[in-house]
Amino acid sequence: MNVGENDATDRKPDKALPPVNEDRRGGMESSEARWIWYPGDYEHWLNAKASVLRQYRGYVCPPVWRLDTAYSNVMFRRSFELEQPEVLTLTVQGDFIAHLDGSMEPVPCERRSPAAILLPVGRHELTVKVVNDAALPAIYAESEHCGTGSGWEVTCFDGRWVPAASWAKLNRASRPPAAFPFEYETVCPASVFEREGKTILDFGRETFGHLSFKALQGTGVLRLHYGESLEEAMAGERAETTDELVVSGDAPCDVQTAVARAFRYVQLAADDGISWREALHEYEFLPMKERGAFRCSDELLNRIWDVSAYTLRINMREFLYDGMKRDRWVWSGDANLGFLINHYSYFEQDVTRRTLIALRGKDPVRIHINTIMDYTFYWFLSLSDYYMYTGDLDFIRSRYTDMLSLAEFCLGRRNSEGMMEGFPEDWVFVDWADMERRGELCFEQLMFCRSLETVAEFAQLLNDSATADRFAGLAEDLREQILHLFWDENQSALIHGRLAGEKIERLLKYPNMFALRFGYLDEQRKESVKRNVLLNRDVPAIKTPFMRFFELEALCEVGERLYVLDEMRRYWGGMLALGATTFWEEYDPSLSPELQYDMYGDKYRKSLCHAWGAAPIYLLGKFLLGVRPEAPGYKRYRIEPFLGDLEWMEGEVPTPDGEVKVRVTRSDIVITTPDAGVGTLRFPCAGAPFCEEGELVPVGSGYYELELTKSAHTYRIAF
Amino acid sequence: MNVGENDATDRKPDKALPPVNEDRRGGMESSEARWIWYPGDYEHWLNAKASVLRQYRGYVCPPVWRLDTAYSNVMFRRSFELEQPEVLTLTVQGDFIAHLDGSMEPVPCERRSPAAILLPVGRHELTVKVVNDAALPAIYAESEHCGTGSGWEVTCFDGRWVPAASWAKLNRASRPPAAFPFEYETVCPASVFEREGKTILDFGRETFGHLSFKALQGTGVLRLHYGESLEEAMAGERAETTDELVVSGDAPCDVQTAVARAFRYVQLAADDGISWREALHEYEFLPMKERGAFRCSDELLNRIWDVSAYTLRINMREFLYDGMKRDRWVWSGDANLGFLINHYSYFEQDVTRRTLIALRGKDPVRIHINTIMDYTFYWFLSLSDYYMYTGDLDFIRSRYTDMLSLAEFCLGRRNSEGMMEGFPEDWVFVDWADMERRGELCFEQLMFCRSLETVAEFAQLLNDSATADRFAGLAEDLREQILHLFWDENQSALIHGRLAGEKIERLLKYPNMFALRFGYLDEQRKESVKRNVLLNRDVPAIKTPFMRFFELEALCEVGERLYVLDEMRRYWGGMLALGATTFWEEYDPSLSPELQYDMYGDKYRKSLCHAWGAAPIYLLGKFLLGVRPEAPGYKRYRIEPFLGDLEWMEGEVPTPDGEVKVRVTRSDIVITTPDAGVGTLRFPCAGAPFCEEGELVPVGSGYYELELTKSAHTYRIAF
Repeated sequence: MNVGENDATDRKPDKALPPVNEDRRGGMESSEARWIWYPGDYEHWLNAKASVLRQYRGYVCPPVWRLDTAYSNVMFRRSFELEQPEVLTLTVQGDFIAHLDGSMEPVPCERRSPAAILLPVGRHELTVKVVNDAALPAIYAESEHCGTGSGWEVTCFDGRWVPAASWAKLNRASRPPAAFPFEYETVCPASVFEREGKTILDFGRETFGHLSFKALQGTGVLRLHYGESLEEAMAGERAETTDELVVSGDAPCDVQTAVARAFRYVQLAADDGISWREALHEYEFLPMKERGAFRCSDELLNRIWDVSAYTLRINMREFLYDGMKRDRWVWSGDANLGFLINHYSYFEQDVTRRTLIALRGKDPVRIHINTIMDYTFYWFLSLSDYYMYTGDLDFIRSRYTDMLSLAEFCLGRRNSEGMMEGFPEDWVFVDWADMERRGELCFEQLMFCRSLETVAEFAQLLNDSATADRFAGLAEDLREQILHLFWDENQSALIHGRLAGEKIERLLKYPNMFALRFGYLDEQRKESVKRNVLLNRDVPAIKTPFMRFFELEALCEVGERLYVLDEMRRYWGGMLALGATTFWEEYDPSLSPELQYDMYGDKYRKSLCHAWGAAPIYLLGKFLLGVRPEAPGYKRYRIEPFLGDLEWMEGEVPTPDGEVKVRVTRSDIVITTPDAGVGTLRFPCAGAPFCEEGELVPVGSGYYELELTKSAHTYRIAF
Repeated sequence: MNVGENDATDRKPDKALPPVNEDRRGGMESSEARWIWYPGDYEHWLNAKASVLRQYRGYVCPPVWRLDTAYSNVMFRRSFELEQPEVLTLTVQGDFIAHLDGSMEPVPCERRSPAAILLPVGRHELTVKVVNDAALPAIYAESEHCGTGSGWEVTCFDGRWVPAASWAKLNRASRPPAAFPFEYETVCPASVFEREGKTILDFGRETFGHLSFKALQGTGVLRLHYGESLEEAMAGERAETTDELVVSGDAPCDVQTAVARAFRYVQLAADDGISWREALHEYEFLPMKERGAFRCSDELLNRIWDVSAYTLRINMREFLYDGMKRDRWVWSGDANLGFLINHYSYFEQDVTRRTLIALRGKDPVRIHINTIMDYTFYWFLSLSDYYMYTGDLDFIRSRYTDMLSLAEFCLGRRNSEGMMEGFPEDWVFVDWADMERRGELCFEQLMFCRSLETVAEFAQLLNDSATADRFAGLAEDLREQILHLFWDENQSALIHGRLAGEKIERLLKYPNMFALRFGYLDEQRKESVKRNVLLNRDVPAIKTPFMRFFELEALCEVGERLYVLDEMRRYWGGMLALGATTFWEEYDPSLSPELQYDMYGDKYRKSLCHAWGAAPIYLLGKFLLGVRPEAPGYKRYRIEPFLGDLEWMEGEVPTPDGEVKVRVTRSDIVITTPDAGVGTLRFPCAGAPFCEEGELVPVGSGYYELELTKSAHTYRIAF
């Protein structure tokens, strides 16, 4: 059986699943009982657990930043008024004590969970103190009127009560938050073979989860060397990840590996006398509906879309990870791309929110997110994108104090010129490329400026006008300063930066494409950046898929969509040609195949399933199908399809209110609008297009626009 | 066997024990290997664990403040230069990975602790990353030159490296920090008896630890109802603390209770068929040398001193707790008294430092220590006392940033008048007495002012003169404001406070005795406070031993030592007369015996072994033996013995450099000075005193002074 044939990953989940966003406020809207906890604590606790699963050849490989966790001591409360007494059944993850109306005497009930508490008639308040330093302190209560569906608040004893947080998927007393609600599917190897005396399992494509052995027996050690490539699995002890199962005793038993790993191949190296009946794979995944879609007349692009979607799926679990073989961490810059790709595919925003909370961590902020200055700024950008794609202001509100304290942290690290330079402990990343990283980098100031703008925008939306004014002023001053200092009239572009008062006049793509992206350039400067930087072969080429993402986006924005289409075929098609079943952390088409898995100075360090490798989904959705929000949550959106050299294409782009469906051929365009919002369709047409409804407005240069005012409606335009 | 006869608590530890203060810096001075960790993390982790051991009738009873814990992810490092390679043996509490010279490749060694690491010749740096979210991340390394004795630093990934912390008692690889290094002694009950059909064990006096059962067998539950009093143990389910041992199976086994408890009596209530051969007590304690001593011609005072010392001993463990039966928490105000008592008895400063660190917690400060405004201020006072008694500026330095951020927290909560009023979430305590707690209480402003002064003094000592000037200015302004606003010329005393602009003219002892204590009153005002407040029967009497401590201290300071001596006999002697084997949380001589254990609205809530009950040690040491430091660490000290109505007294008061020994009779005074410092002896003498060395200087009113300039020397003065 081939893993591809019997794989649940692409199954669309049952419609009966709860809608995606129903608990987006941290608080609760549902009256159905759920596990509840202190807001943010689930994410911090989960991230601390997940972040130490990285392994390097048998050693733990912890991150180089602080891991926050849940408050171990919290108190829940609910006010109620009952006409009849009722029994509340309380299940607790932790030790607990319950009180009524602030009495020192506990409510009489079982000392251990589950406990039955009799709620009396009248107006009262029930409080439940919970302590747990091993797992998240959480409760689940069922009763007719007072269950943990709504109305519960919680405090971490900082003098404030806040609405308790929950997650729709944690809605059963029997499934407490300590175990993440993954789903599992048992998968047989696509093939098992011997090579050079080694036993290799091949699961047909990249996958993630546990290995399980049926009727394992003997005495000794069974070593599992995982490989994303066959070469890595064959390398044995030199593979990035390895597990050891210690087998003792002769009675056969079923054994499963403790930690889920990423791999396609597994080398099994067993001590003499160890045997098993069957080796299987427990595929571990978060069920996600593939809401975005893309199909076209070019099968290569279709495959690129599918492999991209699968790549992202493997990396979207508790959080949106960078890659599952090696780091399996939340990295803010990586996540920024992953979120954008997700907005065009799964639109799975629970993962986005969890990741944004985990990235930010708890106060006090002592160092940049992931230690990287730019990654702090990407966090603000990701929030901004999140709001634009979802319109979820409640989540923004819930993160507002975190946003402000992170912004203050940045403001406190400005130099005497008001700009951000790296402190000794800061990693100034930008990209994996050789460049000066000291001093005032133009790229970093642009990111900082956009972060300040984001704070100002959110402050305005949340009616904190003093903060809005202050940050808008800071951003405006900084933007002027950036353009004044770094725009080089001779080169007609933004230069790299300034070090010790001296300009670094080197031209690099990064500041220019981000200034373009943030709308900081007027039309004339846009044009010169396109010509003098983006399309200039003398400017150093970008080699990482991370920055290629923004480069290709910028090229699309300046009208080079056909070039990007070709580049996609060449670059992502190149990986497919080398046998990729998921897209990679890095790919250099000029390298010989045997050097393709080499990275960071080691033969098999490169991650072959990296979230940012899924970039084509974003590019195809935003620039070929051409769908993007123009107001938060797609209340206004724009569709500018680009068929390029294709005969036809069709696809879907998710919005908070259903999908935008686009089908384009050389003779017609068919759009189905989502359940809400107003769109503008813009398309070129050599002749006179025809549409049964709405007014096709010629807007010059052979382009027409149609206002899509009807929701859940299908518009057909024939050429 | 009687517990009193075979009790190790009073044994003076072997001289071979390491000196008390050798690791007071958080860093290390010793080259002997020890467990090391991130500074403060041992204390936070330990406090989080210990704070949830409180139980109320079988329910967990967590504190109502945030519990911080250790960073779960830290990195240690050590630079070295070797002429010969050497092997370092690394033991780790947690998972780890070691690197040399920042290489991405780990040092080859065992994946599990202990691991042998070969240190190469030359100049290198070894780093060890450790993760542990269950216990404190810590390492212990032995090697000829690079062991964890000195030179190791650690980071919690906040961009800074700090010297690793250790504790001399955690110096064996086989005894990691997860288990506190208590000592144990098996104790048989003093008697076992039946009363009203109940089986009672009596251990002869208050004790603390586990119960153990030899050859326990049967099926069912054995319930243990602990009692500090016989009445409490007899009350069964209504006792404050109860344990249940679930017994199953018929094979006899030895069982011990999981959590140590405070008790003198235990009621054993066993299901039918459960039996045991022997019930024993595992007394659990921190070995401490009783460095202070007091004996006199009044046996009652001697007993009061002994029972006080034992009371404090029971409460000094991981931390200095309030009381061991009920809260068993670190409370900042309680600890302030406990520290002072400890300075005159055990001088066990490891416990003091751990308690001060645990009380303060980690950043961010969101609420007052223990939620109580005054308790925040007591923390500053305790630091000030600690420095005066120990002279340990290194510890003050290690707490300096914590001190500043706590002070900023307070400054941020001032009202428009610059004074501290309770926020809704603040507990304004002062004392358990009926009083107005809203508005600007004079007592709170005095405490705040003294806290600001303390910050200014430490800032000066640590050469942070900008901070020193700022805080000195703030304190001076506030002091003037307090005296201007609250000194009432009509009553010649400080009034209670101001509420909504209106003065609260009520006279209470608290502000007056604290103003006296802080030296804020001139001689004339001192005298009027003594007359109009302290000795004024119309001013409400103080009922708690907590504030009685400060009241008796104030009375001593204003010359009422004979009154205090009598009061001690009456109050503490009263508890002894009621059978106390340790001193209580509260005692009202006017209550009938059957109401003595009642507190907080419950029959047996009162703690009968409460640290602050040990106050006589402080009073006898400071005001009868009359020894006190006048410069930090007793570099200057004063001895003003007061024999009162006693025939003779003798005693010892610990200093960082050995004991001050004082013996006073009606005909002579014998002083043995410690190993350092210069003292002044002051005593009254009707005739002409004689001393073989030094100059006896008459200072008026029949008093003489002698400068004690020789260290470790015995001076004899005959009258």
